[in-house]
Amino acid sequence: MLKPVINIVMGSHSDLEQVKPCCEVCEEFKVPYELKILSAHRSPRRLVSFIQGATRKGAKVFIAAAGGAAALAGTVAAHTTLPVIGIPIRTSNLSGLDSLLSTVQMPAGVPVACMAIGKSGARNAAIFALQSLALSDKKIANKLCAYKRSLARSIRK
Amino acid sequence: MLKPVINIVMGSHSDLEQVKPCCEVCEEFKVPYELKILSAHRSPRRLVSFIQGATRKGAKVFIAAAGGAAALAGTVAAHTTLPVIGIPIRTSNLSGLDSLLSTVQMPAGVPVACMAIGKSGARNAAIFALQSLALSDKKIANKLCAYKRSLARSIRK
Amino acid sequence: MLKPVINIVMGSHSDLEQVKPCCEVCEEFKVPYELKILSAHRSPRRLVSFIQGATRKGAKVFIAAAGGAAALAGTVAAHTTLPVIGIPIRTSNLSGLDSLLSTVQMPAGVPVACMAIGKSGARNAAIFALQSLALSDKKIANKLCAYKRSLARSIRK
Amino acid sequence: MLKPVINIVMGSHSDLEQVKPCCEVCEEFKVPYELKILSAHRSPRRLVSFIQGATRKGAKVFIAAAGGAAALAGTVAAHTTLPVIGIPIRTSNLSGLDSLLSTVQMPAGVPVACMAIGKSGARNAAIFALQSLALSDKKIANKLCAYKRSLARSIRK
Amino acid sequence: MLKPVINIVMGSHSDLEQVKPCCEVCEEFKVPYELKILSAHRSPRRLVSFIQGATRKGAKVFIAAAGGAAALAGTVAAHTTLPVIGIPIRTSNLSGLDSLLSTVQMPAGVPVACMAIGKSGARNAAIFALQSLALSDKKIANKLCAYKRSLARSIRK
Amino acid sequence: MLKPVINIVMGSHSDLEQVKPCCEVCEEFKVPYELKILSAHRSPRRLVSFIQGATRKGAKVFIAAAGGAAALAGTVAAHTTLPVIGIPIRTSNLSGLDSLLSTVQMPAGVPVACMAIGKSGARNAAIFALQSLALSDKKIANKLCAYKRSLARSIRK
Amino acid sequence: MLKPVINIVMGSHSDLEQVKPCCEVCEEFKVPYELKILSAHRSPRRLVSFIQGATRKGAKVFIAAAGGAAALAGTVAAHTTLPVIGIPIRTSNLSGLDSLLSTVQMPAGVPVACMAIGKSGARNAAIFALQSLALSDKKIANKLCAYKRSLARSIRK
Amino acid sequence: MLKPVINIVMGSHSDLEQVKPCCEVCEEFKVPYELKILSAHRSPRRLVSFIQGATRKGAKVFIAAAGGAAALAGTVAAHTTLPVIGIPIRTSNLSGLDSLLSTVQMPAGVPVACMAIGKSGARNAAIFALQSLALSDKKIANKLCAYKRSLARSIRK
Repeated sequence: MLKPVINIVMGSHSDLEQVKPCCEVCEEFKVPYELKILSAHRSPRRLVSFIQGATRKGAKVFIAAAGGAAALAGTVAAHTTLPVIGIPIRTSNLSGLDSLLSTVQMPAGVPVACMAIGKSGARNAAIFALQSLALSDKKIANKLCAYKRSLARSIRK
Repeated sequence: MLKPVINIVMGSHSDLEQVKPCCEVCEEFKVPYELKILSAHRSPRRLVSFIQGATRKGAKVFIAAAGGAAALAGTVAAHTTLPVIGIPIRTSNLSGLDSLLSTVQMPAGVPVACMAIGKSGARNAAIFALQSLALSDKKIANKLCAYKRSLARSIRK
Repeated sequence: MLKPVINIVMGSHSDLEQVKPCCEVCEEFKVPYELKILSAHRSPRRLVSFIQGATRKGAKVFIAAAGGAAALAGTVAAHTTLPVIGIPIRTSNLSGLDSLLSTVQMPAGVPVACMAIGKSGARNAAIFALQSLALSDKKIANKLCAYKRSLARSIRK
Repeated sequence: MLKPVINIVMGSHSDLEQVKPCCEVCEEFKVPYELKILSAHRSPRRLVSFIQGATRKGAKVFIAAAGGAAALAGTVAAHTTLPVIGIPIRTSNLSGLDSLLSTVQMPAGVPVACMAIGKSGARNAAIFALQSLALSDKKIANKLCAYKRSLARSIRK
Repeated sequence: MLKPVINIVMGSHSDLEQVKPCCEVCEEFKVPYELKILSAHRSPRRLVSFIQGATRKGAKVFIAAAGGAAALAGTVAAHTTLPVIGIPIRTSNLSGLDSLLSTVQMPAGVPVACMAIGKSGARNAAIFALQSLALSDKKIANKLCAYKRSLARSIRK
Repeated sequence: MLKPVINIVMGSHSDLEQVKPCCEVCEEFKVPYELKILSAHRSPRRLVSFIQGATRKGAKVFIAAAGGAAALAGTVAAHTTLPVIGIPIRTSNLSGLDSLLSTVQMPAGVPVACMAIGKSGARNAAIFALQSLALSDKKIANKLCAYKRSLARSIRK
Repeated sequence: MLKPVINIVMGSHSDLEQVKPCCEVCEEFKVPYELKILSAHRSPRRLVSFIQGATRKGAKVFIAAAGGAAALAGTVAAHTTLPVIGIPIRTSNLSGLDSLLSTVQMPAGVPVACMAIGKSGARNAAIFALQSLALSDKKIANKLCAYKRSLARSIRK
Repeated sequence: MLKPVINIVMGSHSDLEQVKPCCEVCEEFKVPYELKILSAHRSPRRLVSFIQGATRKGAKVFIAAAGGAAALAGTVAAHTTLPVIGIPIRTSNLSGLDSLLSTVQMPAGVPVACMAIGKSGARNAAIFALQSLALSDKKIANKLCAYKRSLARSIRK
């Protein structure tokens, strides 16, 4: 089995529906990935172990999806120098504005690459991860060019 | 020297001006406290060591002040079962709305007691910590009653 | 019958669905509690009588849940030096942003410990109340540690 | 000395600058008024005494100005059936959005007539009070007509 | 037939469901009222004719309900010195935040008494109108006192 | 003297600083314009007379600038079928968010072309007015093309 | 076949339901129009070709509808000196507040005439386009006057 | 001279003060970069030429900073498959909330990695760019580890 290159964590099982498009992109591009449920607030130690373990096993990019006081992406970023991409989960109360601000307003020194709220953001998180990987992987780069052309075509129909 | 009962952490040195009223209340009530600068994002390991050390040394309440994607209070709450009080720091860009939502919108299971944005919140964080301690400390309870009467009087003038 | 240690008030019967998780935690931890419907705006006198009566009967912590111009938690805090925890009820118009700001932005001197909007906040209000009680009750403290471990485990599954 | 017909309360001395235009209108219209500092949170009992006393002494309208978790107008409205007009004070953190929502989002049964944030709202609170009094006071009604004409003229210049 | 004392206008037929509680209060208190659909933007001339006609026929208070760029209450206030009460209609896009700000943020000199968004605000608009009328109508004043007592009782059950 | 083609109204003298860039564009393009202070709330009748007069005198486009509960542009649009362009004035309390929503959220049937808040919006209001006039005025159309080229050049430097 | 005078673009097929009222107005007024799906982000080159082609074929006004980070109207405005009208599409996450701010807050020099969020805005976009065309087309001008009278009548019923 | 690896564009000269920390990081890490002023709205053609030219010359990452209806990052992302990082510029009117939403709420298929508003975001944009480059550049990876350690140390002092 291939080692995961993209490591996706989400804060709760209920985030799965919104996170799915992220996994689908990985599958479309045939890039090995792993999806874990880990919470910055409820399982903080296992989250740190996971980050360290994933790094040792060759992780290249982290994607973290969380809602509300969404500390997940920021906590991953605190423990790694690999790129961390954040997906603000749409919440029932404040529509994800809380998730967005908690994810994007990171202090200087610890970046999180924040995507749009919800499913569009999830899909884009994976594409952006691939764009980062493509900097040193010509095959992914070519697939991304093909994907971009297909995007334009999909609108024409 | 007395061991700190109230442990105050803030995410950055620039938060000091807003956090000061919190320390002043501790001094007015003569309750030993400690003020540390520790960041959930920039010094995550030392933050965890601090929480563990403080707990061993008899900490009873944590107060955490941070701005922006304010993960500090939530991270402390993730690592302790002691009460954690959060102070959302006023930020220059979104006036502390980001800090407020990042501090208050905690997931079920890991509470943070969120105070108002900025200086009023800082003062109240210490008073609320004292109210929690007063549940088993008659002396503090009496002082709080006296303080409450003085509040009403202060308005009369 | 045991005297209530945690006193929960909510502003309207329609808040019950959101407040339930608060009661459930009290029951899980077997801490005696009382749930009352009392409004800062519609039954202000009975609210004050209730606060005074509850205090005489040994109340330790107040939890107040209200929506819109949510004055309930603040009004309780105005009349007691016991800890007051606020639950901003999700509203149909502004999604609880009004409830949140009305609960959290308390003036210096009269703290309210604000939780997240809605059900998560209700659950956390009770847990936070228990954390305050645990400062002088080893049994609750132990239960909270067990609960925290179960939280982490619940995610693993 | 004339008994105050319009009773103005504000939550803190620092609100005075914003509340002044309210007093100025009363003076321009020569309607007796009283300005008190009373806090729903810091001096709740004296606030209730004041409402009762003012009512006995012939108060006709209450105007309440407060900032942040602005419970003042709502608390006055909870204790009287006289008209209560609210002025949301501009706050340094959330620009008065908190004051506005805390003042205007009253539950069914207990109305507060909310004005604009800050000085314009303060001026309008007094004019609106006069409009209510004018329903049974022809002299004030005439003055208000004159004032309205002067408003239009003031723009022409 | 009795001449309407309270004149209610709403900007569109679709506002009726939210405005109903306003009419119900008038009926409960047996105060003659009139409900009209008139738009500040779509029928501006007829709106002005209505205001003038209603005033001649003895109108005492205007209540105006509108959503979005809700200019209705302000336009009525521009053409009368009678008290004008505004009901911000909940909108499908911005949940009535647009209606609220368009209604409440009136310039100095032309007050609108803004109520809460939607149904609660509609109910309170009528109660507030009655409170203004009660200043010179002992019978309404007594009914309002009875109503206030019933409010408190309704919560007890 | 040339008859004004573009008619600019603003709600208050204090709006002048923000409205100036609108006048400057008219002068740069040498299109006759008129600037008036007229308030939808304080001088509603004169506003209507002005709209009618301006239309008789050959006005082609209206530009209306107002802040807070900004009803000015909407009121002009209610009384004309000429294009009405709105400039939301930046306000000291809510930064122009109130002005923006009051200007842009017009009901179906009565459009206002809303520009950005403040000075950029004022400049663009005039440019947009010219773009509308250019549909039947080749000279203005050519000037706009030249202006567009100069915009791109201005960045190069 | 008639050449389109009003050119409508929308960013995605899913915007159609909200954009429909825009097309309906064009049909009611019998003004030739064209509706295209083109995305500033997914088909940027074809968007530019379309703008150039439409201009050559005699387009007079552009209407652009998009949601989220709604760059469509602004991009069209960047490439033409014809009037560009923007419709902010209501989004599931932030209710169109994101679309509104992305459409309306244009920099000085490149105006977009922003309409209300969603269907009302779509209807008004077409009416506003007609108002611009009416400056040099007496027939459309007359139809607009008739339409305005029908608007007022429609409320009377 | 070294070819720029990181290509920074900003929408206006006035953004420079906020963008500076981005350049400073590039200099600290000795990674060749280029800073250009190019506007999606005012110089759209040159922006596209720049993207194509930069790609030919070996650009690896784009960073785009813009305020208001901030289409810059999205437009760059529309024209490249390289990673695009967005910096929402703080604006005087809406404090950068408009810039943030315009930058982050990208549609599925065209990701922009959004950073925090203003200077912190600018600094983090560069660090994140370096983290992406470090995936295939061991030297940068090592420098990032050293930088992360220095961050933690900087707080200790």
